[in-house]
Amino acid sequence: MSKFATAAKRLVLGRPFRSDRLAHNLLPKRIALPVFASDALSSVAYAPQEIFLTLSVAGLAAFTMSPWIGLVVVVVMLAVVASYRQNVHAYPSGGGDYEVATVNIGPRAGLTVASALLVDYVLTVAVSISSAAANIGALVPFVAEHKVLFCVGAILLLSAMNLRGIRESGSTFAVPTYAFMVGIFVMIGIGLYRTLIAGEELRADSAGLQLAEDNEHLTGLAMIFLVLRAFTQGCAALTGVEAISNGVPAFRKPKSRNAATTLLLLGTIAVTMFMGIIVLARETGVVLAEHPQSQLLNAPPGYTQDTLIVQLAHTVFSGFGFGSFFVIVVTGLILVLAANTAFNGFPVLGSILAQDRFLPRQLHTRGDRLAFSNGILFLAGFAVVLVIAFEAEVTRLIPLYTVGVFVSFTLSQIGMLRHWNRLLARTTEPAERRRMRQSQGINTFGLVMTGSVLVIVLITKFLAGAWIAIVAMVLIFLLMSAIRKHYDRVAEELRKEDEKPAVLPSRNHAVVLVSQLHRPTLRALAYAKATRPDVLEAVTVNVDDTDTRKLVSAWSKHDFKVPLKVIESPYREITKPVLDYVKRIRGDNPRHVVTVFIPEYVVGHWWEQILHNQSALRLKGRLLFQPGIMVTSVPWQLKSSAKAFDRADRERPAAGDVRRGLLGSRSSEGGK
Amino acid sequence: MSKFATAAKRLVLGRPFRSDRLAHNLLPKRIALPVFASDALSSVAYAPQEIFLTLSVAGLAAFTMSPWIGLVVVVVMLAVVASYRQNVHAYPSGGGDYEVATVNIGPRAGLTVASALLVDYVLTVAVSISSAAANIGALVPFVAEHKVLFCVGAILLLSAMNLRGIRESGSTFAVPTYAFMVGIFVMIGIGLYRTLIAGEELRADSAGLQLAEDNEHLTGLAMIFLVLRAFTQGCAALTGVEAISNGVPAFRKPKSRNAATTLLLLGTIAVTMFMGIIVLARETGVVLAEHPQSQLLNAPPGYTQDTLIVQLAHTVFSGFGFGSFFVIVVTGLILVLAANTAFNGFPVLGSILAQDRFLPRQLHTRGDRLAFSNGILFLAGFAVVLVIAFEAEVTRLIPLYTVGVFVSFTLSQIGMLRHWNRLLARTTEPAERRRMRQSQGINTFGLVMTGSVLVIVLITKFLAGAWIAIVAMVLIFLLMSAIRKHYDRVAEELRKEDEKPAVLPSRNHAVVLVSQLHRPTLRALAYAKATRPDVLEAVTVNVDDTDTRKLVSAWSKHDFKVPLKVIESPYREITKPVLDYVKRIRGDNPRHVVTVFIPEYVVGHWWEQILHNQSALRLKGRLLFQPGIMVTSVPWQLKSSAKAFDRADRERPAAGDVRRGLLGSRSSEGGK
Repeated sequence: MSKFATAAKRLVLGRPFRSDRLAHNLLPKRIALPVFASDALSSVAYAPQEIFLTLSVAGLAAFTMSPWIGLVVVVVMLAVVASYRQNVHAYPSGGGDYEVATVNIGPRAGLTVASALLVDYVLTVAVSISSAAANIGALVPFVAEHKVLFCVGAILLLSAMNLRGIRESGSTFAVPTYAFMVGIFVMIGIGLYRTLIAGEELRADSAGLQLAEDNEHLTGLAMIFLVLRAFTQGCAALTGVEAISNGVPAFRKPKSRNAATTLLLLGTIAVTMFMGIIVLARETGVVLAEHPQSQLLNAPPGYTQDTLIVQLAHTVFSGFGFGSFFVIVVTGLILVLAANTAFNGFPVLGSILAQDRFLPRQLHTRGDRLAFSNGILFLAGFAVVLVIAFEAEVTRLIPLYTVGVFVSFTLSQIGMLRHWNRLLARTTEPAERRRMRQSQGINTFGLVMTGSVLVIVLITKFLAGAWIAIVAMVLIFLLMSAIRKHYDRVAEELRKEDEKPAVLPSRNHAVVLVSQLHRPTLRALAYAKATRPDVLEAVTVNVDDTDTRKLVSAWSKHDFKVPLKVIESPYREITKPVLDYVKRIRGDNPRHVVTVFIPEYVVGHWWEQILHNQSALRLKGRLLFQPGIMVTSVPWQLKSSAKAFDRADRERPAAGDVRRGLLGSRSSEGGK
Repeated sequence: MSKFATAAKRLVLGRPFRSDRLAHNLLPKRIALPVFASDALSSVAYAPQEIFLTLSVAGLAAFTMSPWIGLVVVVVMLAVVASYRQNVHAYPSGGGDYEVATVNIGPRAGLTVASALLVDYVLTVAVSISSAAANIGALVPFVAEHKVLFCVGAILLLSAMNLRGIRESGSTFAVPTYAFMVGIFVMIGIGLYRTLIAGEELRADSAGLQLAEDNEHLTGLAMIFLVLRAFTQGCAALTGVEAISNGVPAFRKPKSRNAATTLLLLGTIAVTMFMGIIVLARETGVVLAEHPQSQLLNAPPGYTQDTLIVQLAHTVFSGFGFGSFFVIVVTGLILVLAANTAFNGFPVLGSILAQDRFLPRQLHTRGDRLAFSNGILFLAGFAVVLVIAFEAEVTRLIPLYTVGVFVSFTLSQIGMLRHWNRLLARTTEPAERRRMRQSQGINTFGLVMTGSVLVIVLITKFLAGAWIAIVAMVLIFLLMSAIRKHYDRVAEELRKEDEKPAVLPSRNHAVVLVSQLHRPTLRALAYAKATRPDVLEAVTVNVDDTDTRKLVSAWSKHDFKVPLKVIESPYREITKPVLDYVKRIRGDNPRHVVTVFIPEYVVGHWWEQILHNQSALRLKGRLLFQPGIMVTSVPWQLKSSAKAFDRADRERPAAGDVRRGLLGSRSSEGGK
């Protein structure tokens, strides 16, 4: 009965209504933060380190610049956070940067943002997993020795889980994210307490190492170039900040305010961690080299350079093995979780792009697992290629990563400027205008920051890999434009030309395809009669003389009042003879219609499907190409089909449910 | 017009007739011989050599036995040829051993034969290609060094050609086969003339080599075992002899007599070559060792053992490089051709087995490329596995090969004995009885021979690999039984229970699925009206509120006189809401029917297919599982579909056409 009630509830006659369907699945801030923050926070695991790695080329002395570079990154980050707080207020629909750019600049800008975000998803997977491998490698030597293998395996495992459908909940995200925050904050806190307050002499294992200096080559200009590069590498910390702007609808009311608050919280936590790690690294004298083998002069034989997080954890928790173990494990975990957000984010973006017909339509409707599966395979495939091509080296992947993020940031801020200009043009109320001016000011500052970073990224990293991301973005842009163009062309072709309803067919000639005289055939025949066609006949294809003779004699014994025609098939084909016959009886009259009734057995297993209906499937596919031919499948459910139907009914969760506010909805419904 | 005429010609109303459709494609004996003989004749390339290789374990002295072992093989071969001459007279339908065993012994015996033949096809490919590699390796060192790679490549190439469809003709088979005959006969002729008549001292390169003797271990019993093994290895010469009995329908009239004559011709040529090669090998003193590295005592360093054919060619044509080159090339060619016969033979056997429902039904109807493609991939896949597992060593593959052939031979002869017994029981005319007794005598001798060989093969080669072939046969047997059982079960379920025609549906509720208001929708609506259902309504699924509102308001502006219902879809699914709705309106009355009309666009390219109809396909697939639901596709052909239709119309030739008497038929038809 409850099933019936559900069906009835879902059914509204006459006109559509706005359902408050998502209300009960919305996220409180304490859950929304981990759901949307894992990507942004996990950047802290690699961004500070990248600053040191880049500076290492200029020798140990250059490391003194790291806190200053870090501070500039923090300023950019806070500017971006402040800007996005404006975005979530102005565009609470979850369209994010894509919507902002499309509405305010135009569809081409929106599509550019979308291309950048799609490229970013691939890089989020590649960078996060590579960084996870580098950190976990400190605990498990096997991972360190087979980094690429581990990364490929992890990506395949993640995609398998997402293909299968994992039932995520808030705690899936909350536990590792909060554990990561606790781990990092405790580490920074204890570390800074011991060094700055207690005045201990905490020295990292690498503190005594000497760096080969390349100073003679680093003239003024080259030095500026190097510092800018270090800065853009550090800007990897900003990746993932935009996630919340795509997830506003999943927040509890007041949505925009809660989202903005969460964004501020995220920003504060991220910059604190980021600067804390840099300062701690300076205090403990960590030495990192981009090319440890050639740059480290006095390293002991067999020295392997651990990640910054691992080194800090070992130093701060020296003598307390569990502390460093915990920090390293949660760092690995949050990085894997960050990679998984790409698998979650893709369906959300894909759905929006599909709604605007830039991607296949079925991505918009949920439940089409096949479409999403292709997306997941696409994501995993390219991430695997990147990991293999760049040998799972985070440093080499980051140039590709930052360009996409900052293209999206910059276009979004341009869009927001225009947004405020448009609103200002039609607002006269001074207080409101002042608030708008203020918001516009914030977005302007954001634009200056992100635009500058984008230019610096392009200048300093174009040859280092940014060009690959740009080429990928262009290709995705062209592909999506082509898809949209195709849909537009089809829509044009399908538009009713004269606004008049189509004319009724003047003559309906019904053909029932018969292979044997069994119950499906009888059912098809009875059903065909019920549609009261102008002509009704049964047709069989003679692929085997003996069988055909039997069928004809059995037919004549019954009083069907329907003639059975036999079509010869000299080469034992089915499709072509039927096609030729049907074409002939329809003739050239556009108002004549031929309806072909095909009895089909419905079976329960894929291997049964191999044994049945193959000819019917082929024939149906070919008949569709013929104008004026309708194809009706008259199914006969074999006993085995019931099981398969039940199996298919148990639908599985889809990736990205949590961030679409569909948290737990399927499981509660499944229980009915 | 000619297209129309063809369609009309193919179309016979009222009752089936026996077409003389194959008459003009039949094979004259001079073409039939190469078409069916390449497999059997190519055995000459490895069978004689295998006798020497096996005997080599017992030292050089054992080689003296080779002509005597060869003679026994010849006797068995002639007995088999004589027996099969009876078969082709008694069973001219092309069913071959499978038919003989099924009719006279029973379906299980027939299925055993079929399993043996299927295993044989795989081994024909593996053995022939491996032997080709060994021979071609003498000309191309790369092949000799990468034998397995060459074999895998060749098998993949052959399967690609057969998947694609190669237009074979009689000359495809005739040229290499006759060239091989000429090459081998000229070589034997010149060789024997020079040694036996001209009295020259022709010595093979390997003539001076010494063989390590293992005599102390070869007690009487072991020696007998060895000789028997050498004999069964030589019996590989018989593989392929049964091919003609499967091809009788492709012969010109009088079919049986022509087939029997061709069989005799084939037998004579094969035994002459076989004995000629053995005698020539003895005369030129060829030394072959199963394990050249360990057995050859005084071989020069880096000595590689060529195949017997290569050694003989080099010896006989010493100083005339082209002669040996020609023999080696045509030997390689006929071996590849023999491998290809397996790809040709499979569809023929598959079609017969499918007719008896031991294999998927679509294998019986021609034109289902997909089904045959799976067969080709199956064949190639297993052949590749065998080649890799046995390192392309003919000697190690032959134990698997002979067991299948002799299972088939033996069961066929048992069947023929019963056949004659049955005929004798109802014949009283003395002259005819005498002829039957004679034929039965020949088959009895054949049975004694083949049965003995089978027993010897099982005893001497079970552990050497015959068990693998037997396990494979058992598995194929079980699979085919399972398929047959499944079809029987389905047929039982489908059989009309009460011989009464199905009742007409009492109520037909028509539902037209609408996503937008465009021409395909209008057409579907008009067509649905024309079927005069009891209830007609349009239904749309609300996956996007804005779109749905637009649709509803557009609908209300038209005067369709058909209500539009909106089904809510809280999770933006299409399939499940429609399914629930349709189930609900049908209710539980078994005589109620719901017809779902689905407007579909027909597009021309696979990538367009990705962009359209995916939801419709999914929905159709799921609706079929619902009792009492009919699904009608109302196609709308987009412009691009015309091209795709033309493309699909150009059908390609299928493997095995020549041996089914369909030689060139498709090409002549294609020209219309």
